[in-house]
Amino acid sequence: MCEDGMALDQNYGVMADLLGLTAKAVPEVEALFERGRAALRERVTVAGKVSASAMEQQQFAAHSLSWLATYTEALRQLRAWAGRLQADGRFGEMEGLILQIGFGEYLSQIYGGIPMSQGEMARLGDLGIEAAPGAAAGLLMADGNTPAARMRLVALMQDNQGRATFGASGLDDELEMIRDQFRRFADEKVAPQAHGWHLRDELIPMEIIEALAEMGVFGLTIPEEFGGFGLSKASMVVVSEELSRGYIGVGSLGTRSEIAAELILCGGTDAQKAQWLPKLASGEILPTAVFTEPNTGSDLGSLRTRAVEGPEGWEVTGNKTWITHAARTHVMTLLARTDPETTDYRGLSMFLAEKVPGTDAEPFPTPGMTGGEIEVLGYRGMKEYELAFDGFKVKSENLLGGVPGQGFKQLMQTFESARIQTAARAIGVAQNALEVGMQYAIDRKQFGKSLIAFPRVAGKLAMMAVEVMITRQLTYHSAWAKDHGKRCDLEAGMAKLLGARVAWAAADNALQIHGGNGFALEYQISRILCDARILNIFEGAAEIQAQVIARRLLD
Amino acid sequence: MCEDGMALDQNYGVMADLLGLTAKAVPEVEALFERGRAALRERVTVAGKVSASAMEQQQFAAHSLSWLATYTEALRQLRAWAGRLQADGRFGEMEGLILQIGFGEYLSQIYGGIPMSQGEMARLGDLGIEAAPGAAAGLLMADGNTPAARMRLVALMQDNQGRATFGASGLDDELEMIRDQFRRFADEKVAPQAHGWHLRDELIPMEIIEALAEMGVFGLTIPEEFGGFGLSKASMVVVSEELSRGYIGVGSLGTRSEIAAELILCGGTDAQKAQWLPKLASGEILPTAVFTEPNTGSDLGSLRTRAVEGPEGWEVTGNKTWITHAARTHVMTLLARTDPETTDYRGLSMFLAEKVPGTDAEPFPTPGMTGGEIEVLGYRGMKEYELAFDGFKVKSENLLGGVPGQGFKQLMQTFESARIQTAARAIGVAQNALEVGMQYAIDRKQFGKSLIAFPRVAGKLAMMAVEVMITRQLTYHSAWAKDHGKRCDLEAGMAKLLGARVAWAAADNALQIHGGNGFALEYQISRILCDARILNIFEGAAEIQAQVIARRLLD
Ligand SMILES: Cc1cc2nc3c(=O)[nH]c(=O)nc-3n(C[C@H](O)[C@H](O)[C@H](O)COP(=O)(O)OP(=O)(O)OC[C@H]3O[C@@H](n4cnc5c(N)ncnc54)[C@H](O)[C@@H]3O)c2cc1C
Ligand SMILES: Cc1cc2nc3c(=O)[nH]c(=O)nc-3n(C[C@H](O)[C@H](O)[C@H](O)COP(=O)(O)OP(=O)(O)OC[C@H]3O[C@@H](n4cnc5c(N)ncnc54)[C@H](O)[C@@H]3O)c2cc1C
Ligand SMILES: CC(C)(COP(=O)(O)OP(=O)(O)OC[C@H]1O[C@@H](n2cnc3c(N)ncnc32)[C@H](O)[C@@H]1OP(=O)(O)O)[C@@H](O)C(=O)NCCC(=O)NCCS
Ligand SMILES: CC(C)(COP(=O)(O)OP(=O)(O)OC[C@H]1O[C@@H](n2cnc3c(N)ncnc32)[C@H](O)[C@@H]1OP(=O)(O)O)[C@@H](O)C(=O)NCCC(=O)NCCS
Repeated sequence: MCEDGMALDQNYGVMADLLGLTAKAVPEVEALFERGRAALRERVTVAGKVSASAMEQQQFAAHSLSWLATYTEALRQLRAWAGRLQADGRFGEMEGLILQIGFGEYLSQIYGGIPMSQGEMARLGDLGIEAAPGAAAGLLMADGNTPAARMRLVALMQDNQGRATFGASGLDDELEMIRDQFRRFADEKVAPQAHGWHLRDELIPMEIIEALAEMGVFGLTIPEEFGGFGLSKASMVVVSEELSRGYIGVGSLGTRSEIAAELILCGGTDAQKAQWLPKLASGEILPTAVFTEPNTGSDLGSLRTRAVEGPEGWEVTGNKTWITHAARTHVMTLLARTDPETTDYRGLSMFLAEKVPGTDAEPFPTPGMTGGEIEVLGYRGMKEYELAFDGFKVKSENLLGGVPGQGFKQLMQTFESARIQTAARAIGVAQNALEVGMQYAIDRKQFGKSLIAFPRVAGKLAMMAVEVMITRQLTYHSAWAKDHGKRCDLEAGMAKLLGARVAWAAADNALQIHGGNGFALEYQISRILCDARILNIFEGAAEIQAQVIARRLLD
Repeated sequence: MCEDGMALDQNYGVMADLLGLTAKAVPEVEALFERGRAALRERVTVAGKVSASAMEQQQFAAHSLSWLATYTEALRQLRAWAGRLQADGRFGEMEGLILQIGFGEYLSQIYGGIPMSQGEMARLGDLGIEAAPGAAAGLLMADGNTPAARMRLVALMQDNQGRATFGASGLDDELEMIRDQFRRFADEKVAPQAHGWHLRDELIPMEIIEALAEMGVFGLTIPEEFGGFGLSKASMVVVSEELSRGYIGVGSLGTRSEIAAELILCGGTDAQKAQWLPKLASGEILPTAVFTEPNTGSDLGSLRTRAVEGPEGWEVTGNKTWITHAARTHVMTLLARTDPETTDYRGLSMFLAEKVPGTDAEPFPTPGMTGGEIEVLGYRGMKEYELAFDGFKVKSENLLGGVPGQGFKQLMQTFESARIQTAARAIGVAQNALEVGMQYAIDRKQFGKSLIAFPRVAGKLAMMAVEVMITRQLTYHSAWAKDHGKRCDLEAGMAKLLGARVAWAAADNALQIHGGNGFALEYQISRILCDARILNIFEGAAEIQAQVIARRLLD
């Protein structure tokens, strides 16, 4: 946009004083959120402390607050993005439309109902507060998200050739170069094959993994001293976005390395760092994350797989399930109970459990361990497994950090990165849905016109672009917080929570644009829908995410 | 409920004067709708007439009006249902909770935003009107859909053993006996097998079809003089609900017979009625509906398959697609262009085109016709096909009604019944999702409790039950209108529009309740999600449905 030298005063459809109005709306929303928080706190405080049982009883209100907090942060970050672009002379018409539609829609939802899921609306009334929009918010609600603004945005989007994002991302040039590199890779090597891998339910070929390893994907954020690139979490986000845009399976290969590396960096001994990190960084070692059990998903702290220390190291016994990429990998970050006297998170420890990578013929060759595949709707490419351990051996030195009982907190810290990365995957999936939906809407004609000429169709595409940008900014913000050493389970949780909903809505709407063809396995959108559905479930289901956020808000 | 002799004044969680409040809220919403309609009419009227191009430009507003109208009718019907039950002494606590939650939620959406799809909210502002809720509506919005009401409803739902619906349906005993009969059939013969059929992508076995034929499914609404049962459309709705609750594929077998029979009853000659109806009624002849073409779905009027009359009858040439159950059936209701000079609906005619039923080995044995299967996400069991006709022969006497050029209007009238039946299918799918989700929520424990004890989980189930009842009442109303000889494309369209959204949301939320297991092909909810997705696409996509409704509202 800036290339055209367009300034905000010749901005066609953009509202007058948009930056001023949005600047005024942010503190209004912040104040509303604070009122909501105070109201909830009052409801759940018993004898001066937040009561867990009151929180549970007030769960709907608590989760409503989490969503309100997420929208508040989202609008704050969207406005901050616009402000930075404006200062750089890069705030063009497309960015203006995204800003005004985003504010218009999200403010209307804040005052009228935020969909936590289909059919579950979080309203101010659920928090026991009432409010009417102030002048700036009212104007944005009335004039921000209009059909005209959406149509104009979509016209600009059709003119966006060659640019990777709809609207300037606001990231620096180095990150955008990384984006371009991975975008090209995804376009050339991933996207053309993804649908075939999915339909045939195949593992992503090793050549792809090797190419990613060569491009440094697995060592992106590992410090240089351990053989990585020492790049920021923001770079991980950009890479994950672009790979997931090609195929969620490929964008998710790095998640496990990210978890393993974070676990070791934060909780490992020096010897463990030296031993594992370089090989994780190079991709020579592929890890898998082994936490969930048949009876234990969200309530991870209560898991039952036992690890008992003997003279020859640890012996693991128990069942795990939903283990992604379990067969082909070399090491498991395995969470098990080492203190048999406990039933909660306190008795858990994390292991770096070595295994022999399996083959199609023999997926689990390591003694003490068996496994079976779980067939899934989407998110294929690495395959899912149930695992059974029976006296499975782990060397003593492979207890993470060398001290038992630390496993759960080590993992929780790691989830910050994993959830940021998952938000990035969601962005990639949403962007993919948007692009595939838009291309179809351009190509398909009905009633004598391209579908994209119809306001309902264009409007869907516009909202996808706007929500993708909102989620981007929220995710970049959480990555920035992580990069600056701040505890960011709150920010990461928000990005994951919103990202998952946005990707699911984008896939759903892009499928709708395909009409009947969306229902045909032959069309990729049928896969994208299935892939998108996982994001609300794993890495903390939406309700758990909302719970984590609510607790932190009341801390 | 009535068995317990519970009267409304000992009604635990139910709001005081609920029937009074809801009675007051209905005219308020009706007035709001009338204001919206007037506002839209003004916007789209050019030179005293509704302008098609203005309607298209105002499409978002027009569709918002359609949704507002749908909610208005839904609340009117829900209130009417409650009133009838009350008069009969059958309005118990469960019905009271459904009424108050339904009003609370739908009123809040009317004033705060109705989700037309994920991310597309219809607001009063989109119609250019502003309004604040009156006293009764305000009370219902504040106290109707509370967590306590939802929790209480779910407690009652768990106590509902043996009853087929959550809350009295309000239908007469004869219809409820029909329901019970088909419910038993679905529970015994359909539900246990449906998932296997889906996973193996198989045709529903002929024994099921034969059993349905014996039970009279295919002749339910065909007059007795033509070998049918001469029952009401309401009975068709109940049967379709219950069969679809077992499996959408089985609930959809009757759709094609319904379309064929309606076409012939409304548009056929006496000879055609005598020839076809008895065999359709007995299930001896299975029909398939052949309308859509590769380039023509929503804009059916512009289709291009040609039929040319020669000395030996008609010859059909062209391509069709998305033809459900094309292979195994005996007759096609085939829409083709008989006037080559036209490009719109005026030159279309409907044929009763005979074919030889295919086998697995030879799916399309009839000369002049070839076909290929389209693999699909869900809604399997009858299979989907593309068809190509090349000089395919149809006897002269098989032109519906004997006069060419009537095909499109004949079909449009028929769509009324088809859409009522589709709404019923949606109810069945939603009810199935609800029951499967509820059972899982009872069985699955996390954090030391059944999932159903958590407000977010219970709340999802409560909303499903409420929306199922709302859609039921709207659908029964449209069936009633049809049975009373009224033109009811408006009512049928509303029922279909809302039903599709409700089923999709129910499946989505029930899957979420399953957590990771929802993503496993092994669990039926993964199929129910895929099955539910079709409802927004076929028999008039959601946007087309909204368009049809909007036009009729401004007629
Ligand atoms: C494709 C896929 C890949 C996965 N990959 C891995 C992996 O590699 N490694 C690994 O360890 N795990 C993995 N998982 C497991 C995943 O993390 C879990 O599925 C997830 O944590 C949810 O746990 P659950 O499935 O047991 O659901 P449950 O915990 O049983 O939850 C079911 C539902 O109840 C809700 N719920 C639960 N508790 C509450 C509450 N207190 N209040 C309100 N609602 C509640 C949840 O939000 C959810 O909607 C994967 C799962 C899938 C489907
Ligand atoms: C599983 C399945 C079974 C089917 N069974 C049959 C069958 O047995 N017989 C048969 O004849 N057909 C059948 N169909 C076809 C079905 O009726 C069509 O798919 C449907 O009518 C939509 O048409 P389309 O797919 O061409 O979508 P399109 O018409 O291309 O529409 C694509 C999208 O654009 C939207 N759109 C189109 N026009 C407008 C507009 N003017 N304004 C706003 N939005 C618009 C639509 O709402 C939709 O979201 C079946 C389809 C499926 C998927
Ligand atoms: C539900 C859930 C949030 C934890 O709930 P919980 O068992 O009630 O645990 P708590 O929140 O009480 O946390 C336990 C401890 O960990 C600490 N902790 C939690 N998150 C932390 C973080 N991000 N950083 C540091 N410490 C953290 C808590 O402070 C608490 O310590 P304390 O008792 O010393 O105060 C957690 O089990 C979870 O995230 N589940 C989802 C599982 C998942 O995402 N799986 C994906 C597998 S791929
Ligand atoms: C889009 C759609 C509604 C028609 O749009 P259209 O081509 O603009 O047609 P119109 O609405 O102008 O209707 C054409 C004529 O049919 C008439 N008509 C429409 N619906 C009617 C009904 N329910 N009863 C009687 N006549 C009807 C109209 O009055 C009009 O007649 P007129 O010109 O004499 O006034 C129609 O093509 C449709 O329903 N598409 C979806 C296809 C579908 O559901 N396929 C499912 C296959 S299984």
